[in-house]
Amino acid sequence: MAGSALLISLVIGFSLFGLLVAYYLVRWVMAKDTGSEAMQRISNAIKEGAEAFLRRQNRTILLLAAVFAAVLFIGYGFVRQSREFDPVGSSLQLALWIALSFIFGALCSVFAGYVGMWVSIRSNIRTATAALSSLNEALRIALRGGAVSGLLVVAMSLLGVAGLYALVSTVGGVEPTKVPLLIVGYGFGASFVALFAQLGGGIYTKAADVGADLVGKVEAGIPEDDPRNPAVIADLVGDNVGDCAGRGADLFESTAAENIGAMILGASLAAAAQKQGIEFSMGVVGVMMFPLVARAFGILASVIGILAVKMDKEERMDPMEALNRGYYLAVALAMAGFAGATYWLLSSPAAPNAWWHFFLCGVIGVLTSVAFVYITQYYTEYRYRPVQSIAEASTTGPATNIIAGVGVGFECTWMPAVVMGAALLASYWLGETSGLPHAGLFGTAVATMGMLATAAYILAMDTFGPITDNAGGIVEMSQQPEEVRRKTDRLDAVGNTTKALTKGYAIGSAGLAAFLLFQAYMDEVKNYAGLGESAPFVVNLAKPVVFVGALLGAMLVFLFSALAIRAVGKAAQSIIEEVRRQYANLPRENDIIVFPPNFKPDYGSCVDIVTKAALKRMVAPGLLVVLMPVAVGVVFRIFIRPDDPLISAEAVAGLLMVGTIGGILVALFLNNAGGAWDNAKKFIETGAHGGKYLMTPDGKRMKNPTHGAAVVGDTVGDPFKDTAGPSLHVLIKLLSTITLVLAPLFI
Amino acid sequence: MAGSALLISLVIGFSLFGLLVAYYLVRWVMAKDTGSEAMQRISNAIKEGAEAFLRRQNRTILLLAAVFAAVLFIGYGFVRQSREFDPVGSSLQLALWIALSFIFGALCSVFAGYVGMWVSIRSNIRTATAALSSLNEALRIALRGGAVSGLLVVAMSLLGVAGLYALVSTVGGVEPTKVPLLIVGYGFGASFVALFAQLGGGIYTKAADVGADLVGKVEAGIPEDDPRNPAVIADLVGDNVGDCAGRGADLFESTAAENIGAMILGASLAAAAQKQGIEFSMGVVGVMMFPLVARAFGILASVIGILAVKMDKEERMDPMEALNRGYYLAVALAMAGFAGATYWLLSSPAAPNAWWHFFLCGVIGVLTSVAFVYITQYYTEYRYRPVQSIAEASTTGPATNIIAGVGVGFECTWMPAVVMGAALLASYWLGETSGLPHAGLFGTAVATMGMLATAAYILAMDTFGPITDNAGGIVEMSQQPEEVRRKTDRLDAVGNTTKALTKGYAIGSAGLAAFLLFQAYMDEVKNYAGLGESAPFVVNLAKPVVFVGALLGAMLVFLFSALAIRAVGKAAQSIIEEVRRQYANLPRENDIIVFPPNFKPDYGSCVDIVTKAALKRMVAPGLLVVLMPVAVGVVFRIFIRPDDPLISAEAVAGLLMVGTIGGILVALFLNNAGGAWDNAKKFIETGAHGGKYLMTPDGKRMKNPTHGAAVVGDTVGDPFKDTAGPSLHVLIKLLSTITLVLAPLFI
Repeated sequence: MAGSALLISLVIGFSLFGLLVAYYLVRWVMAKDTGSEAMQRISNAIKEGAEAFLRRQNRTILLLAAVFAAVLFIGYGFVRQSREFDPVGSSLQLALWIALSFIFGALCSVFAGYVGMWVSIRSNIRTATAALSSLNEALRIALRGGAVSGLLVVAMSLLGVAGLYALVSTVGGVEPTKVPLLIVGYGFGASFVALFAQLGGGIYTKAADVGADLVGKVEAGIPEDDPRNPAVIADLVGDNVGDCAGRGADLFESTAAENIGAMILGASLAAAAQKQGIEFSMGVVGVMMFPLVARAFGILASVIGILAVKMDKEERMDPMEALNRGYYLAVALAMAGFAGATYWLLSSPAAPNAWWHFFLCGVIGVLTSVAFVYITQYYTEYRYRPVQSIAEASTTGPATNIIAGVGVGFECTWMPAVVMGAALLASYWLGETSGLPHAGLFGTAVATMGMLATAAYILAMDTFGPITDNAGGIVEMSQQPEEVRRKTDRLDAVGNTTKALTKGYAIGSAGLAAFLLFQAYMDEVKNYAGLGESAPFVVNLAKPVVFVGALLGAMLVFLFSALAIRAVGKAAQSIIEEVRRQYANLPRENDIIVFPPNFKPDYGSCVDIVTKAALKRMVAPGLLVVLMPVAVGVVFRIFIRPDDPLISAEAVAGLLMVGTIGGILVALFLNNAGGAWDNAKKFIETGAHGGKYLMTPDGKRMKNPTHGAAVVGDTVGDPFKDTAGPSLHVLIKLLSTITLVLAPLFI
Repeated sequence: MAGSALLISLVIGFSLFGLLVAYYLVRWVMAKDTGSEAMQRISNAIKEGAEAFLRRQNRTILLLAAVFAAVLFIGYGFVRQSREFDPVGSSLQLALWIALSFIFGALCSVFAGYVGMWVSIRSNIRTATAALSSLNEALRIALRGGAVSGLLVVAMSLLGVAGLYALVSTVGGVEPTKVPLLIVGYGFGASFVALFAQLGGGIYTKAADVGADLVGKVEAGIPEDDPRNPAVIADLVGDNVGDCAGRGADLFESTAAENIGAMILGASLAAAAQKQGIEFSMGVVGVMMFPLVARAFGILASVIGILAVKMDKEERMDPMEALNRGYYLAVALAMAGFAGATYWLLSSPAAPNAWWHFFLCGVIGVLTSVAFVYITQYYTEYRYRPVQSIAEASTTGPATNIIAGVGVGFECTWMPAVVMGAALLASYWLGETSGLPHAGLFGTAVATMGMLATAAYILAMDTFGPITDNAGGIVEMSQQPEEVRRKTDRLDAVGNTTKALTKGYAIGSAGLAAFLLFQAYMDEVKNYAGLGESAPFVVNLAKPVVFVGALLGAMLVFLFSALAIRAVGKAAQSIIEEVRRQYANLPRENDIIVFPPNFKPDYGSCVDIVTKAALKRMVAPGLLVVLMPVAVGVVFRIFIRPDDPLISAEAVAGLLMVGTIGGILVALFLNNAGGAWDNAKKFIETGAHGGKYLMTPDGKRMKNPTHGAAVVGDTVGDPFKDTAGPSLHVLIKLLSTITLVLAPLFI
């Protein structure tokens, strides 16, 4: 127990350290100059809109969560009474822990998302102000503001799991290796919130964006961030609620769920090894705590990386370069920490090679994340063929642009799939040959841990995006000098890149983690069904029931995406109608609106309308994801071969696995096609294929139809990459966590 | 043996009957009036272009096929020597039969495609001519011309299988139940040809279509079928080579592969039943021949249905109605024949319920095809919400049109998936409860047979489409009176619907058939690996190797679609450049081309260019599909756990199954989104949302931007529904047949 106490203290200590650094960064950012009154006015408008949206969204989400917690409690209470295997010996106690950890996970996720966004909407104006004088200062403010979100998410996720563990094992008196089974609710609660946060935020941001674009360009011929566009504040708000809050919740539940899953696997592995007489330096508990310890070291590594980021003196380097350097530093340190953790916790005299086998697994995980970053760049940056082919296709109109973009999106799935497959097989092999029995799957778990080691830095980079995006908007709307706008544009371009990279990273980690979560699910099923730990749980696709489950799982991905995409369209429609209403009485000349000099649109009503629309439309897709595995499990259990208790668990496993495969590929398609379309447009704007405007023979300036075609592609890609794609990451994880929690019901 | 001879004779007899009817129909069509000289000139141009393309394509395909036959021969010869199990006792003999049946299948497929197209390009002008006087006559010519293709394909497929069976069992002296294992090459050869035919034809047709559209509208402002457009003949040719030849080859290999697969399954089933003392009225051979007999009855049913089609006297009914009536008649008769076949061949005193259980399976198959037809109509006809939502989204521009279309495409996957799942589970259950041991999978095979019973009629309807499409083009280009154009337009609209329906039907049958082909694959692996027939062959997704195989299988679908779509774009580019070259020296006024009165473009060069481009670009995607399972199987065999002989076969099974799931869903997406976009445009052209043209305030006519947006969607959807989508059907089947043939190499 002493070892366990030491480890828990260490983990909690590092988490608190992470939170302290986050606090310090908040103070640092808030101390910066907030700029002119004009800028503050805009920033306040964004702040109000974002906070109003998040308040309402959290209210809705927590209501749904409360309902689910009750369902879980009842389900577990009812189901448990008929089982022999019972980790706590009392069904009431089990039901209580599951429901409580669910609520706790939900609350933590909401809190992390809220605070993260609180800081970023205060960082944006400070970034804009800093850009008036120093690009380096602006970069640091934006990154550190984002880092608050990153550190908060990772540290709280870790603290929550460690804290729950401590609580359950001491107060609940549960045997340590059974504790993770009780706290699975934590990951589920976090996933639950993440799904709705990402959906709601994603629908909001894209509806506002599309609405603002269409109104601005189509209806009134004004540019996107023009203050006369009533939807522009909603658009800037959307960047925050979609990208900050949504992605924060997404990574919160990733790290939480994977921590718990890895603990479950570690516990099984160590127990099996112990039966064969293999002892570890910190015992079985040490192996189980390994994921948490690795994560703790990762926090430290990320902190150092973040604090080290700065530009060169002349501010001539690409800001992306500065961010990359910080990232590589964080990765190197995290790997050093990883080596320490594997050597300390995973080595055994009876299996002397185990520790460095697992260390290599961690390295594989990191290399996978780097690979994903580069693959994403290849498919979405305009230095490379794919984006250039889309730009070229734009010369023959919007249809060929779309066709080319869809082609690129479909194509970009192959490299990530091969990389993921190679990583899975390699880490599995390393595990199997480590000297520990049946350690292949633990090897994949460790690879996942490696990939997620620098999650805090990744999330900081991700939140950097909306901060710089908003900063650019503020600068534009308060009519700052051109030179300032150029600085924020440099950061904004980097922000777009980091947003794309972190999506690729999220998918890659979803792929690696999926396997460990499958295994955790299957371990749990075996436990509850009373099979021995070494009994194989087979997911045999040759059984029609399992095949049909798999088919339905893949179909779920498509249907979900359809609902998310359709939601954006409908919500955008409401914005467009509101704006038309506001413009209805303005004077026109030749059908072009002539704005009165003091025209001040009503921003609040647009924000309000999009808020309502997004929240209304996120419920259906979210519920679909949560209910579908349940429905399949229950229906199959009742109607199909009720004599075989495992058959519906097997069908749900098929749904889970093939749903994950489908989700990964479709998310890659949506994210990368969207990113490629966006950058094809930017490529043309740099002057390729004629640039934004052409000169007519008689010296007038006219819009270049090639650019117009690229704008169509960019608009199409937006809901793909900002709503449906990111929501699919969460869908993948939620499928795993929900099956993990609801497994007992299927048996 | 006598029973076997009787059955074979019956099957061959019905096949010959089908061929005779086809011959009669050819004579009937050729006897019709060929119309004016102007019309004949155009028809001749189409004929030359189509035949030139097909000649070149077949040369390329047969070259590739010859290479593959050699590879097969060597592979089988080499591999076989190290195996205990050997169906023929001599590896050379086995290799020979496989290679020969492969070549035979390839040749038959090429022949069927060629003759089918030969007739349809002669039917188009006769249809056009008939439309001058009688809609009923035009309908009948178009349908009967298409029926030649349908009957030829189904009858030859059946004749090929039956003939090979007779040949191998007599000359080769092989035990009857082992014969199907040798003739798997027939299905593979047919699939091989089908893939390249569908790809090559699909790329051709869409490149020509897109090119002609863009040139006509964008470059010169002339309508699509205008004779001044150099690409217009290529466009009309494309309808034939894509839709006729490609789809014919597709259904040829479907029916062939499923026949053989069902025979393999039937043989296993009957042998297992025999061991339990269950005897059938026509013995084991009768069970094995059941699929062929059912197909034979289906030919008769289709013939009667086709001959019965006619319009009402006033010609006021919807022509679709007439086609539907014929279809239902064919279905009813086919079911009657099915009942007869099941009663005769599948009943046994020891299992008295078996026959009608299997009859019900057949009915389920037919109901599934009807369901697919209706689901497709819901998502692609403008009477219903999905298409209307796309039309409405067009009012806010092309981007929202595309977003809505993608949403509809994603959404439309759910109903077919649920229907397919239900059909699989229901037919499996009926088989399991039939009284025969382990007959569940045979139940799914019988359901597939039921679905394909009326394949000849379906293919007739499918080929009807290009015939009426061409007829319309001929009428337009030879400047016939408006009234004639209206008649052909009615038929053309019906033709578009039937093209969409048959695609839905093809996917549905692919889904049902996939299972029977999986099983045939697994049976074969068991045989070759020396396992007993009752040994379970498990495809355990929980094994990382299998999971990775599955991931790669799904990825293959996306990568293949990307290559197909990209091929269309590149090929279209070549046409556009050629047309620009031809237009380069024409006089212009205000940038608009002024055509000289006698301007005659060079059609031949366009046809030539697209031919070359399509053939060049079909090779890569085709080879990808053929080589990927081989690569996975071989690489996994060599590098991963060489101690477990089955592991790579299992990984390939995972690739196959999940690739099928992915292929079904993505094909549904591509086909239905394409169809929906097409009909959204047509809906607007009927006047919705302003119609094609709007009136400006000063009384001038201007193009309606809503229609323009819908045209963008239509253009995007074309390569989806005519190139990538149909090619995916073939990919699904080819994956099954190739794994079937190459299984021994993996062990």
